[in-house]
Amino acid sequence: MKFCSQCGESVTQRIPEGDNRSRFVCTVCEVIHYQNPRIIAGCLPVYEDKVLLCKRSIEPRSGYWTLPAGFLENGETTSDGALRETREEANANATIIELYTLFSLPHISQVYMFFRASLDNLDFSPGEETLETQLFSEDEIPWDELAFPVITQTLNHYFEDRKEDLFPVRSLDIVLQRKAR
Amino acid sequence: MKFCSQCGESVTQRIPEGDNRSRFVCTVCEVIHYQNPRIIAGCLPVYEDKVLLCKRSIEPRSGYWTLPAGFLENGETTSDGALRETREEANANATIIELYTLFSLPHISQVYMFFRASLDNLDFSPGEETLETQLFSEDEIPWDELAFPVITQTLNHYFEDRKEDLFPVRSLDIVLQRKAR
Repeated sequence: MKFCSQCGESVTQRIPEGDNRSRFVCTVCEVIHYQNPRIIAGCLPVYEDKVLLCKRSIEPRSGYWTLPAGFLENGETTSDGALRETREEANANATIIELYTLFSLPHISQVYMFFRASLDNLDFSPGEETLETQLFSEDEIPWDELAFPVITQTLNHYFEDRKEDLFPVRSLDIVLQRKAR
Repeated sequence: MKFCSQCGESVTQRIPEGDNRSRFVCTVCEVIHYQNPRIIAGCLPVYEDKVLLCKRSIEPRSGYWTLPAGFLENGETTSDGALRETREEANANATIIELYTLFSLPHISQVYMFFRASLDNLDFSPGEETLETQLFSEDEIPWDELAFPVITQTLNHYFEDRKEDLFPVRSLDIVLQRKAR
């Protein structure tokens, strides 16, 4: 951020009065521009004993398999965002069962959340950001070709929890150190 | 948003190519400025059979009681944010037990999450945004003076769940209609 989005003048970084963190503050109108973590909402779409994965057609991790998920939009509930991403990435309709995993990724200021969902039918196909869509049983999951640790962990927990048919919500942190500068 | 935070020129609202929502886009450098929901993280701090509430000293809802909570910061995990807010608003140290409630408030593009937490000791006092801090047993809760529906619902669930000593995570939506313009 270099310029104030309210008045167009330069911003500087300083700790505002009464605050304890450095913020972008306008040098002219003094508006404080807060920056906050973003939410990625997605589904774990299940059909019988299989889960629906999407092969990404975009970076990062193009060519790797993911669960349908994406940035939550203003005006959306988290479950609505998860279902919208499932429609956009897999042209699939699903029904939310329950929140399942919540991940903090503080090194990139993101919070992921996945909902267990039942796929309404077998009518699915790749959306614009997807190369392939496919249902996988547990022994077919391409574990070495999953796009992100949050996907691996969500699937791992799912197949483990499915043995007992109990799916407690899991709140997890994925903490990486920033590279030294 | 009126000006581009990257180059300082005017922004306009339009649907970028490949998108389906109106965004702020710079008329000169064409950077797209996405706006996304923000997370408010907080604690339900418990000490023996009581919960710690804070009387707000700031708007909105100054003078009403709340659980310690506030905007998640970049670089933080959700539980770290919840504990930081507990320190800032109640000068209290607590230990996270588990995620408890998650609320979508799409009309204001916010997602609230509360963690059950055990208060480490009785050393608490009002922080800068707080008039009073007090422990309340169930029959002492000032139900008519709670600041927000997410506080009322979290406390209601807590006292109900405590009877069985089972605290499933609850993902809830608080959907209000926008006022007609």
